[in-house]
Amino acid sequence: MPVVECTARRSPVTERVVLAYSGGLDTSVAIGWIAEETGAEVIAVAVDVGQGGEDLDVIRKRALACGAVEAEVADARDEFADEYCLPAVKANALYMDRYPLVSALSRPVIVKHLVAAAKKHGAGTVAHGCTGKGNDQVRFEAGIQALGPGLKCVAPVRDYAMTRDRAIAFCEDKGLPIATTKKSPYSIDQNVFGRAVETGFLEDIWNGPVEDIYEYTSNPATPREADEVVISFKEGVPVAVDGRPVTVLQAIQQLNERAGVHGVGRIDMVEDRLVGIKSREVYEAPGAIALITAHSELESVTVERELARYKRQVEQRWGELVYDGLWFSPLKRALDGFIDEANQHVTGDIRMTLHGGRAVVTGRRSQESLYDFNLATYDTGDTFDQSKAQGFIDIFALSSRIAAKRDLA
Amino acid sequence: MPVVECTARRSPVTERVVLAYSGGLDTSVAIGWIAEETGAEVIAVAVDVGQGGEDLDVIRKRALACGAVEAEVADARDEFADEYCLPAVKANALYMDRYPLVSALSRPVIVKHLVAAAKKHGAGTVAHGCTGKGNDQVRFEAGIQALGPGLKCVAPVRDYAMTRDRAIAFCEDKGLPIATTKKSPYSIDQNVFGRAVETGFLEDIWNGPVEDIYEYTSNPATPREADEVVISFKEGVPVAVDGRPVTVLQAIQQLNERAGVHGVGRIDMVEDRLVGIKSREVYEAPGAIALITAHSELESVTVERELARYKRQVEQRWGELVYDGLWFSPLKRALDGFIDEANQHVTGDIRMTLHGGRAVVTGRRSQESLYDFNLATYDTGDTFDQSKAQGFIDIFALSSRIAAKRDLA
Amino acid sequence: MPVVECTARRSPVTERVVLAYSGGLDTSVAIGWIAEETGAEVIAVAVDVGQGGEDLDVIRKRALACGAVEAEVADARDEFADEYCLPAVKANALYMDRYPLVSALSRPVIVKHLVAAAKKHGAGTVAHGCTGKGNDQVRFEAGIQALGPGLKCVAPVRDYAMTRDRAIAFCEDKGLPIATTKKSPYSIDQNVFGRAVETGFLEDIWNGPVEDIYEYTSNPATPREADEVVISFKEGVPVAVDGRPVTVLQAIQQLNERAGVHGVGRIDMVEDRLVGIKSREVYEAPGAIALITAHSELESVTVERELARYKRQVEQRWGELVYDGLWFSPLKRALDGFIDEANQHVTGDIRMTLHGGRAVVTGRRSQESLYDFNLATYDTGDTFDQSKAQGFIDIFALSSRIAAKRDLA
Amino acid sequence: MPVVECTARRSPVTERVVLAYSGGLDTSVAIGWIAEETGAEVIAVAVDVGQGGEDLDVIRKRALACGAVEAEVADARDEFADEYCLPAVKANALYMDRYPLVSALSRPVIVKHLVAAAKKHGAGTVAHGCTGKGNDQVRFEAGIQALGPGLKCVAPVRDYAMTRDRAIAFCEDKGLPIATTKKSPYSIDQNVFGRAVETGFLEDIWNGPVEDIYEYTSNPATPREADEVVISFKEGVPVAVDGRPVTVLQAIQQLNERAGVHGVGRIDMVEDRLVGIKSREVYEAPGAIALITAHSELESVTVERELARYKRQVEQRWGELVYDGLWFSPLKRALDGFIDEANQHVTGDIRMTLHGGRAVVTGRRSQESLYDFNLATYDTGDTFDQSKAQGFIDIFALSSRIAAKRDLA
Repeated sequence: MPVVECTARRSPVTERVVLAYSGGLDTSVAIGWIAEETGAEVIAVAVDVGQGGEDLDVIRKRALACGAVEAEVADARDEFADEYCLPAVKANALYMDRYPLVSALSRPVIVKHLVAAAKKHGAGTVAHGCTGKGNDQVRFEAGIQALGPGLKCVAPVRDYAMTRDRAIAFCEDKGLPIATTKKSPYSIDQNVFGRAVETGFLEDIWNGPVEDIYEYTSNPATPREADEVVISFKEGVPVAVDGRPVTVLQAIQQLNERAGVHGVGRIDMVEDRLVGIKSREVYEAPGAIALITAHSELESVTVERELARYKRQVEQRWGELVYDGLWFSPLKRALDGFIDEANQHVTGDIRMTLHGGRAVVTGRRSQESLYDFNLATYDTGDTFDQSKAQGFIDIFALSSRIAAKRDLA
Repeated sequence: MPVVECTARRSPVTERVVLAYSGGLDTSVAIGWIAEETGAEVIAVAVDVGQGGEDLDVIRKRALACGAVEAEVADARDEFADEYCLPAVKANALYMDRYPLVSALSRPVIVKHLVAAAKKHGAGTVAHGCTGKGNDQVRFEAGIQALGPGLKCVAPVRDYAMTRDRAIAFCEDKGLPIATTKKSPYSIDQNVFGRAVETGFLEDIWNGPVEDIYEYTSNPATPREADEVVISFKEGVPVAVDGRPVTVLQAIQQLNERAGVHGVGRIDMVEDRLVGIKSREVYEAPGAIALITAHSELESVTVERELARYKRQVEQRWGELVYDGLWFSPLKRALDGFIDEANQHVTGDIRMTLHGGRAVVTGRRSQESLYDFNLATYDTGDTFDQSKAQGFIDIFALSSRIAAKRDLA
Repeated sequence: MPVVECTARRSPVTERVVLAYSGGLDTSVAIGWIAEETGAEVIAVAVDVGQGGEDLDVIRKRALACGAVEAEVADARDEFADEYCLPAVKANALYMDRYPLVSALSRPVIVKHLVAAAKKHGAGTVAHGCTGKGNDQVRFEAGIQALGPGLKCVAPVRDYAMTRDRAIAFCEDKGLPIATTKKSPYSIDQNVFGRAVETGFLEDIWNGPVEDIYEYTSNPATPREADEVVISFKEGVPVAVDGRPVTVLQAIQQLNERAGVHGVGRIDMVEDRLVGIKSREVYEAPGAIALITAHSELESVTVERELARYKRQVEQRWGELVYDGLWFSPLKRALDGFIDEANQHVTGDIRMTLHGGRAVVTGRRSQESLYDFNLATYDTGDTFDQSKAQGFIDIFALSSRIAAKRDLA
Repeated sequence: MPVVECTARRSPVTERVVLAYSGGLDTSVAIGWIAEETGAEVIAVAVDVGQGGEDLDVIRKRALACGAVEAEVADARDEFADEYCLPAVKANALYMDRYPLVSALSRPVIVKHLVAAAKKHGAGTVAHGCTGKGNDQVRFEAGIQALGPGLKCVAPVRDYAMTRDRAIAFCEDKGLPIATTKKSPYSIDQNVFGRAVETGFLEDIWNGPVEDIYEYTSNPATPREADEVVISFKEGVPVAVDGRPVTVLQAIQQLNERAGVHGVGRIDMVEDRLVGIKSREVYEAPGAIALITAHSELESVTVERELARYKRQVEQRWGELVYDGLWFSPLKRALDGFIDEANQHVTGDIRMTLHGGRAVVTGRRSQESLYDFNLATYDTGDTFDQSKAQGFIDIFALSSRIAAKRDLA
């Protein structure tokens, strides 16, 4: 784990700030803005978590052109899939039963690279592009403080009043090599696990989403042939798709493609933010939803009842913690201890039909199955001893029956 | 609440048994079977919970023709909707996140009528048609023991070895007025809140369901025009559909129709039974799923975050309790105390599109909304004070940060 | 419930601030300090929650002498006992299994009076004497914002740098009628439900408390005769002590006296504050601990098992919420819905021995008891049907047994 | 882990039964009784879990004298302490917040030895001495079925009507070498972790316990000098007492002695049994209570707040599971995953005073402490930045404040 000592290893003549850099207008402007506000040197760090778009090297060069003293890029796609998305699948993590934590999962892996860069370059501050009313500022700063206890955090938009309009003016004024033409009406955050869209039109929660906000998914209402897929898991980890071995990253990518074509994984919700407000959010996460659907179904077959019942509560708390930015927290680690143990037998295959916006499970098979045909069948060959039932019912319901007798009196 | 004294009001010359009567082969045979096994008089009681099928009076007459000394029928459809389905909607109750408790909800209302009949007719025993390996025997008997502490329970299939084949032979032998031709391959339980199907073919959990097992829902893959519906709630209760006032029963019926056409509410799952085994179950519950989807979404808009987070746990326990047959239990009552309080502001409208097997929310509006446009918007007019955020983050994450500092050491 | 409109009823020429006034040095100085900082008129409000000490009228006059334009005092002792302490007893509320929420309970009732005074006097701000690192600032301000959404909050110690030394200087400078001689080494908060003590010596958590920090309790190690007391409850409410009817306030007062003599209710703990730090706290709460011990025991006798098991979780969350200052929150109300329902049968008598620092239950009796001698006894007369047990065990443990069979393989 | 194949390794001419043997009248008679009822050979197995009393070899010989074909004894004291008591300490396990699971912990270790013996000797049945209305029959049989899925269970008292009177008659009739004089009025179960006492007199729950039922503890009311002890833990494990290294077994034994002298650990409660009834139980567990008190306090100092809050729920469920006989269950294992992770930093020393029935913590110190003097102190040197507090409070309470504004309207 990357660690930053409170006292940087060397004392640079000039203060240094590590900036989470995306290559877009806001963080490109932030390079110069931070330098002007603080007099510090800015080191730009871009992390690829599967957001697609421009080549990382192009982004790196742009950072330098915008005034960064150093620029680093990291391909963290497999790391993100293996260490962040996979635990979410094992936890069937859906915040408010709906949202697969797309952005919330990417922040800690980005933080890890930011803090490592701060250590490497002797920076005392980490900067990010978030506003002051969202969840991501918390996820960044709670993470940075956890991995680099001595680091300071700044957010130019929030702390230095770097509004969009002022950023465009700055950009034009300094002649930065970024197009500033017309702002997209959409505010997007995306990575391989999904995509989040915000836009003014959707701030009226009576309005429905329009088709052109989506990129990872096609319109589920368009008629097309259904697709059938078999996902194989080993101890909770997706290891094959239609029998072909995959990494976790590949599983997500392939299912993004195949489930996305059928419009699977669109989510439109009113969400309880950590900062106390409700906000309208639209997401699309075809691969995430397909994987969680399959994983959860395989648990139904392989996880014992009482463990399954308790795990639902653990999953909910896990999702809340991660949503709330507490990835690097003691409770998160202990919940993972529970979840990993619970996934030990989650091995087998799930067959699903992808069609019309839905991933529908149609078959399950597992060497670790707890479904026992001979106990379950109503056919001959049944091994369930029905004579036990009366004793069970009488004692199972006894405490409640004693209370009922009193309460009817 | 109907109460049975341990000592029946009068001492009939002959023992009397109240039988939960459906009008089908099994319970028709059970009338005579119980009489032979016990020497008791049998009183048949049929309760209409919206299962459709034959006229209640026809059923009543058949019971008498099969040897019942008395036969009673009750239209409990509104009672079932108002007192059993509605609390489930308020609880967004989905056992294992999937099953809206269709059969589990109907048992307690049937039990109430059985126990009332036992009291009225001086019967000391209540009989039902369940086997010894399912959940329904527990739901019947736990309920009967709760409402009628002195009553005995019998189940001819379980306790008197009344197999299907022996029942047919009995029927033919006695010349009972019931067709015994060929047994349907499906075992069905249905009521207005949904329909459950079991069949040998599905006991192989790798097999997918076939189209002809469904009756409440059409094939979602068939192309058709989408339907749009607005459901209005008042304090958690559905009170109007597309602006037209409805009872709870009518809301369920109308949505069964409209959502059913679009194949909404099909459920195919491996389920953890109370008796300890996993079983494959297929359900269809278009109205229930549409109502719960809408209700849950309106909660997202009107219920405060911490209450919403806690309520998910309460909902899960509520669903487990009801599934497990403990409707008439002290914990169920106390959870209802929580849930009713939480529903106090769940008032407003939800607009949904019904299509392709899905009920998709597209709009929400409410006088009780906690969504505050001015706090949520990123437009001008924003009233959220972003300068508070830094202080919040620092203190919110402090305990975790102190631990991280130690744990990194 | 007292409500303050965002726009005060009248627009006073001068801004007005309502100050939570204790009569001590800090809040006496705060009257003038706030006036100087803000130019506002200060209205002092003192609330009697059983903290003892000076006469309320003396306190009222001192406030005026220190410059308050108005001073109000309220005897809220019964209100505090009935509406704040009683719910805590019903919830067996012990934060971290130890602390009966003494100060946390008093803040909301004080807030209610502050907000009512702000409304009455047209004040737009409420001030309190808390520091910026404790829980009480949160409890005050979260409460004030809940009951008076438009009110501003200030805390001179935290916001205007009113340190102890500067307060003494101010006091002497202005000739305020308050003794400033030597500061007690103890920081105390007390009310009828208990007493909290902080002092520098105890900030070393290896140090044990010394005897002279205690006032509500005598040294439990001193040999003395034991006392025996019978507390009677009706639906969770203490209604008699040794057969003599009492109000809730009287129950607390009498048990403070009788349990205090025997050193019952001393608590020495390291506590997780809401603001993220751990702090050492010493409390004494003889009446609270005696009442909760008795109430909890009566629940063991009168509350059904599954309700009792679930209630422990509800109690924990209730305690955390109240500790965290969220008394006036939707979740608190819904938890109260659960708790009130659960207390419906908590009626009966508990006999306890008070001695040597302990309140030890020695007897319970209740008309609502679920303890059934005939079921429990191993004597003749036993009505428990042991033949049921085998069936129960086999089915109860079946899901776990199926899993074990797999896991041993 | 000992495993039994469903088909025994060899097919003995005669069926064999392994009997959990205590050396007392009941199980001595059971040897012959089972032989007569079943025609099987009986193998007696006695397991030392620190119950004290007779020498194991004496017990072994008595079994043979009573007709056992084989007799085995095992010293499982360290195994019991390390693998069963220690997890309970780590979980601070107190069923109903009171009972440290004394008997419930011993059953699984005994079961392990019984099943191993059944495998070794080719026995197809395991027998135990429990009645049909207690918890222990469930703990034995659920455990036996989990570790030896093919094994049958019998309980002569429950299944073969072996009453006390008939056992005495059998004993005299057969001339078995056991004293049958007068039955003790007490029914005792004890091991190194504690002692349980049942007796007819206490079946009236208004009666208090009398002094002569206790053996592990002296009367706490007797005046004596207090004892001070320092217990050191490493990752949740007690490793030293007053600086002298100890095994877990020694820690329990030494604290049984030292805390027992001061009457620590007496418990008198009305308990919810798994079989649905409430029963009166009296326990004494001086070492267990002292260890759990110390461990829990050290957690207050070393475990982060959110983890600590969640762990309380996990502890409760752990205690219920173990009480309910589900030691060998998937949920138990997953909860242990959580608990072990949570104990990783529970390292340090706790000083306690043992006196007058109480173990009172007076000091804590730890290298892993999260208590930060500089953050906590109100002295100069305080590093807590109070200016953060306002922002924290405003955002922390925002969701609740928005709801309050609506609810006051």
